[in-house]
Amino acid sequence: MSTKGKVLLAYSGGLDTSCILAWLIEQGYEVQCYMANIGQIEDFDAAKEKALKIGATAVYIEDIRRDFVNTTILPAIQANCIYEGVYLLGTSLARPVIAAKQMEIAKREGCQFVSHGCTGKGNDQVRFELAFYALDPKIQVIAPWRIPEFYNRFQGRSDLLAYAAEKNIPVQQTAAKPWSTDENLYHISFEAGILEDPNVTPPPNMWKLTVNPEEAPNTPEHIAITFKAGIPVKVENLDDGHVETDPLDLFIYLNTLGRKHGVGRIDIVENRFIGIKSRGCYETPGGTILRACHVDLEGICMDREARRLRDSLGVRLSEILYNGYWFTAEREIIQAAVNESQKYIDGTVKCKLYKGSVTMEGRTSPNSLYDQDLSSMDIAGGFHPLDSEGFIKIQSIRLKAYTDMKNRLSN
Amino acid sequence: MSTKGKVLLAYSGGLDTSCILAWLIEQGYEVQCYMANIGQIEDFDAAKEKALKIGATAVYIEDIRRDFVNTTILPAIQANCIYEGVYLLGTSLARPVIAAKQMEIAKREGCQFVSHGCTGKGNDQVRFELAFYALDPKIQVIAPWRIPEFYNRFQGRSDLLAYAAEKNIPVQQTAAKPWSTDENLYHISFEAGILEDPNVTPPPNMWKLTVNPEEAPNTPEHIAITFKAGIPVKVENLDDGHVETDPLDLFIYLNTLGRKHGVGRIDIVENRFIGIKSRGCYETPGGTILRACHVDLEGICMDREARRLRDSLGVRLSEILYNGYWFTAEREIIQAAVNESQKYIDGTVKCKLYKGSVTMEGRTSPNSLYDQDLSSMDIAGGFHPLDSEGFIKIQSIRLKAYTDMKNRLSN
Amino acid sequence: MSTKGKVLLAYSGGLDTSCILAWLIEQGYEVQCYMANIGQIEDFDAAKEKALKIGATAVYIEDIRRDFVNTTILPAIQANCIYEGVYLLGTSLARPVIAAKQMEIAKREGCQFVSHGCTGKGNDQVRFELAFYALDPKIQVIAPWRIPEFYNRFQGRSDLLAYAAEKNIPVQQTAAKPWSTDENLYHISFEAGILEDPNVTPPPNMWKLTVNPEEAPNTPEHIAITFKAGIPVKVENLDDGHVETDPLDLFIYLNTLGRKHGVGRIDIVENRFIGIKSRGCYETPGGTILRACHVDLEGICMDREARRLRDSLGVRLSEILYNGYWFTAEREIIQAAVNESQKYIDGTVKCKLYKGSVTMEGRTSPNSLYDQDLSSMDIAGGFHPLDSEGFIKIQSIRLKAYTDMKNRLSN
Amino acid sequence: MSTKGKVLLAYSGGLDTSCILAWLIEQGYEVQCYMANIGQIEDFDAAKEKALKIGATAVYIEDIRRDFVNTTILPAIQANCIYEGVYLLGTSLARPVIAAKQMEIAKREGCQFVSHGCTGKGNDQVRFELAFYALDPKIQVIAPWRIPEFYNRFQGRSDLLAYAAEKNIPVQQTAAKPWSTDENLYHISFEAGILEDPNVTPPPNMWKLTVNPEEAPNTPEHIAITFKAGIPVKVENLDDGHVETDPLDLFIYLNTLGRKHGVGRIDIVENRFIGIKSRGCYETPGGTILRACHVDLEGICMDREARRLRDSLGVRLSEILYNGYWFTAEREIIQAAVNESQKYIDGTVKCKLYKGSVTMEGRTSPNSLYDQDLSSMDIAGGFHPLDSEGFIKIQSIRLKAYTDMKNRLSN
Repeated sequence: MSTKGKVLLAYSGGLDTSCILAWLIEQGYEVQCYMANIGQIEDFDAAKEKALKIGATAVYIEDIRRDFVNTTILPAIQANCIYEGVYLLGTSLARPVIAAKQMEIAKREGCQFVSHGCTGKGNDQVRFELAFYALDPKIQVIAPWRIPEFYNRFQGRSDLLAYAAEKNIPVQQTAAKPWSTDENLYHISFEAGILEDPNVTPPPNMWKLTVNPEEAPNTPEHIAITFKAGIPVKVENLDDGHVETDPLDLFIYLNTLGRKHGVGRIDIVENRFIGIKSRGCYETPGGTILRACHVDLEGICMDREARRLRDSLGVRLSEILYNGYWFTAEREIIQAAVNESQKYIDGTVKCKLYKGSVTMEGRTSPNSLYDQDLSSMDIAGGFHPLDSEGFIKIQSIRLKAYTDMKNRLSN
Repeated sequence: MSTKGKVLLAYSGGLDTSCILAWLIEQGYEVQCYMANIGQIEDFDAAKEKALKIGATAVYIEDIRRDFVNTTILPAIQANCIYEGVYLLGTSLARPVIAAKQMEIAKREGCQFVSHGCTGKGNDQVRFELAFYALDPKIQVIAPWRIPEFYNRFQGRSDLLAYAAEKNIPVQQTAAKPWSTDENLYHISFEAGILEDPNVTPPPNMWKLTVNPEEAPNTPEHIAITFKAGIPVKVENLDDGHVETDPLDLFIYLNTLGRKHGVGRIDIVENRFIGIKSRGCYETPGGTILRACHVDLEGICMDREARRLRDSLGVRLSEILYNGYWFTAEREIIQAAVNESQKYIDGTVKCKLYKGSVTMEGRTSPNSLYDQDLSSMDIAGGFHPLDSEGFIKIQSIRLKAYTDMKNRLSN
Repeated sequence: MSTKGKVLLAYSGGLDTSCILAWLIEQGYEVQCYMANIGQIEDFDAAKEKALKIGATAVYIEDIRRDFVNTTILPAIQANCIYEGVYLLGTSLARPVIAAKQMEIAKREGCQFVSHGCTGKGNDQVRFELAFYALDPKIQVIAPWRIPEFYNRFQGRSDLLAYAAEKNIPVQQTAAKPWSTDENLYHISFEAGILEDPNVTPPPNMWKLTVNPEEAPNTPEHIAITFKAGIPVKVENLDDGHVETDPLDLFIYLNTLGRKHGVGRIDIVENRFIGIKSRGCYETPGGTILRACHVDLEGICMDREARRLRDSLGVRLSEILYNGYWFTAEREIIQAAVNESQKYIDGTVKCKLYKGSVTMEGRTSPNSLYDQDLSSMDIAGGFHPLDSEGFIKIQSIRLKAYTDMKNRLSN
Repeated sequence: MSTKGKVLLAYSGGLDTSCILAWLIEQGYEVQCYMANIGQIEDFDAAKEKALKIGATAVYIEDIRRDFVNTTILPAIQANCIYEGVYLLGTSLARPVIAAKQMEIAKREGCQFVSHGCTGKGNDQVRFELAFYALDPKIQVIAPWRIPEFYNRFQGRSDLLAYAAEKNIPVQQTAAKPWSTDENLYHISFEAGILEDPNVTPPPNMWKLTVNPEEAPNTPEHIAITFKAGIPVKVENLDDGHVETDPLDLFIYLNTLGRKHGVGRIDIVENRFIGIKSRGCYETPGGTILRACHVDLEGICMDREARRLRDSLGVRLSEILYNGYWFTAEREIIQAAVNESQKYIDGTVKCKLYKGSVTMEGRTSPNSLYDQDLSSMDIAGGFHPLDSEGFIKIQSIRLKAYTDMKNRLSN
């Protein structure tokens, strides 16, 4: 049977991508489905069965959680990435990893097209497609929510439900939540629906990955995280002695702890790449703990100017991630710099988790640049007070010149 | 009686500056004392009496709390200032205001010298003296802790106590705390002593301006802060209806709330300007709340690129403040930019205070740049999905060129 | 007669915009024409007559040269604007001024549409339209070169010529040059045609605003430019005594001098905003001289850190200009900072013009921060050598700590 | 014979360091001398003989020209380093290389001390000593011009001459020039003396490494430089066919060409690290040509955002070089980023040298990112004009929101 070509569709098992799957087949494409396990809660087998029933000629389920941790999460931790001072980039970090695997399969399976169910107003369409095009400039992208024939036909949920009925696509009978979510190993996002009014407080039952701080344990829990070259290599629970050392297990364990203590919720109005402001709520339990400890460790073993420089690159890397520019020359350059900056970031940070907050409680490093004698106000420590005098006098030279000039002018 | 000249000494009433006062008189100077009320807890009258008794020819007590709020605290809030990602700069912000008043009095009273009790290893000597020299390039600074005759004579607390006894200087009989502090309206700092080991967890009884989160109320408290041009103009307690509108009162009230809920503690190893790493603990109750709310408001009413630009200037301003460069051309330029950036930052932010954390709960602004229709995933809202397609295609041009080039090379 | 509405077309009198004019009328629009005099060589009266003959219902010719100088050229000089290290932004600087006047007329005349003849691959479409939309978010833009009905019909110059013949549009009989140009008071650009091969050396007869350096006078010419707050207020020819003080006259005179001495040619491959690389040649005679002198003057009267800060903002402003973001929040913020930075940039710079180069020959400033005594290696000048010792020792503290750490590691 | 220890003195053979040598011996040190051949014109054998005669126990003459080129010159070219927009950093680049060799010898020879003849007001003392301390935190530095016993004794040239006579130190009978110079392979600097008045035009006979442009050949010369990974690997004279490929020979040849055509003179007032403004004149013949060609090549084969990022790092690297921070964590990080950015910077640039100027005449690259079809205004080239429409519309979203908000406010 002749077709328009072969499409690899990023499939979630939900109503939208199921309708897209059916519609693409209807348009004359052969469609294969791709599901990425990035740590979300999902019945992958059921979804696979559903896709095959709708007419997918193949379904690929890929566990890319470990890729996710190693490829983007840990580098983001090394650079203390944060977008607009608050957002830890959980969705942004997942996209390049999902897209890379999708392109790998598309190439292997000889698909001329890749497709996704992202809307035309969001960041994710940009992140996926910039990755697709960067990985294969010849790839053709089908984005149904930007195709008039599609979006004019499916103007609301009822149109999708009707089409699903027509195509015998099973639909979960759970009531739709008044917001939409995107979940992965690193975080969950909430947006749209009732959240579109930025003055509405998120309802307590919305949050999913963390308990409400008010309901978190009344007793703090103490942990220690050990880093090697800026990468966490061990988490130890100082109260019960539990230890994790595998990167993925360690991360999952931090999520468990963060969840228990209500750590990592934020609620913001952010700036999407396409210039629209958008309100989002996020839970990033393990990531919040990890980032705080990494920042703290750098206090003791990172040179001041190295830190200043890396911090400015971290701001840029956060934008690169948010906007979907992972597969670019600029990201490669920043990565090289960040890697260099992390060579000596070894050590252990202790912290306390309690009702939504992470509190530092001490840190040590074999590569410490902290010198207790020098730091001490009580010890001379190889330090000559006259040096400070000279330092200040020299630093004041240009300030004095500026004031003298202003005084000349006002006389 | 002939003297070496007149000195205006920044006096605290404590052992160090009392000994410095006596020593300067002994050296042949006429000494006047200056005490700045910047919100610290202090018995100013007792200190004045003590100074006069030791031999000060005048004592000036100045309430500069309002100056402090208006001159440096609010501009720092407008720029979301933070040093090394964590520290809110409470000490740094106070220094220019204290120094300016000291220089004003020195000029008025005809003092050729100003003096202070800062050590030779810290940031404060730099901050004070850069301010002094910038305000009057001809001023002469006496920094006893950098003068060999002084620091060789007073090598420890016992030398100071012996001198105090010799000079009949009354000494408070309270046991010295195993750390030193600096307190003002904005924060309190703790450093030195047992804190010099960066792996030692600060003891619970150290903290002074906030209750231990574990002992904070079990019920959250809800407030709303209203800003005009980035400046807080109203704080309302949404639970009990209490309202403050005066800048100073409003700030004091936020401190009260922050204290009650254990908000604003940090513990870091930071990089001093003179290149030494140092461990500091800080409590900044009101400032922590205020900054979080200001950051949040900008989400809704600040343009994305304006924010990015101002954020980079905020990093620089934080360094300027930390390093003591308030009275400089570079600060004036940044201030002009920050002022411009805050023209439209009006609106109200709601937040919840609970056991150490500040949680955003909604925001409104008359100058909102948030457009619910545009933002909504469900509403077309004057937005054409094809525009996104073009946007992405154009953004991918250079990415494709880069990949094509790399592919050519590897073939 | 009913029409689709009223269009204000940016009209040049050339073949392209004449055909656009006729085509828009054919489509049912009422079309008015707008011609901006920004210093290009043009027979405005002939063009006006031509437009009216084709069917324009009105033609507005506006001399905006003075606006051009004051609004964008001088602020760009104050910020030493330069794109990618080489290009002085002559086209970019003109666009906001042209667009603002076009929107002013469109509003006054009740036009619902504005139109231009820019192609779909260049920067100018972006610059014009971002300005249009920023000045009036409701304006509708007609860009024929992006409308399939138009660009499919006119696929080459012969199609345009045939249409012109059909519509009785007079066509200049000069042979088309093998490149295209854009000229204004500040510069002329050359691109396309034979220049599309980046390895082709521009032919000597291409250049228009400057003589070939090889044919420039064998004797240098000496001038002095005086600035006030970073703005040139006087140019004096030190050889013949000629003086100009009016901003526009002064700029025209510098162009004359630059032309005579072959100053200001460049040939580059640059990065367009839409991600395409493009080869351009430019002549900016007066601007090259002015910028060099402004940079030089700042050496003597601008504080070091002020300069560093302004320089980083100048890079950003250059991108803003190049990409067409003049009417934005980010530009307003930078402008505020740049204005503040220029308060004290007063003084006179001498330079020599000779066969393509501008050579500095001395500078003075009433606000000089240069202190001959301090600078001199031979004079103590209130400077204590021991201060430098302290300065260096303090600066070395963190370097020593870094080396000590690395040594510990390698042992 | 017991001494105070062994000193390795950076020795030039001139009056200053000869007197320092004698004085150090007089003070009881054993002194060895170190002379670095970094391309300056010098009679090393005569200097060695002189040092031995004065009393040096050893003299080490090291040809570090190749180190100089590879270690700092080429990396600076790769980053297009330039200080304050004008100065190519010739002295700054030499210092780390000279210091590293001095420390290597000091270690090998067991010297506890290193010494130099830099004054207390300049940049070089800082550059040398920061390098010394970074390379060995325990090294002790003797800087006679900052030691009161030395500088009080030698207050002028006549004191030095008298001391030389007393110590039988031979003195060259040439009249001292009214400025001082520092020369190496990369450049020569002129400062002090008559140049201290920043309004004095440097006399034509001052310049040394280049002919006066007015006296340069009347016929231009054409060359082509080929780069590999941003490093020049070939210079070809397109007029006479001469070719150089060795890094050092190539650099020397470019100097010869630059000298012949009067290329690379500047005259500036710059900001020294210690906050003093200083007037300097510099000739950098080969470096000026090389930098211009490297900048040009990047136009064709460097990604836009990679360039923007690297450019900002280049500014920082220039400051690092100027201020003497070569042996630091921050420099290592930047180097890693710059190296990554240069991976694909291969190709050949043609330029013309003529009476002081370097003019680009074309460039090619096997890794070109320039796409003639895409760039061309005449060819559709896989480009859809509607994409630009979408691009612009999306880019205008936030601009429209900002204007709408301002309009709301003013109504």
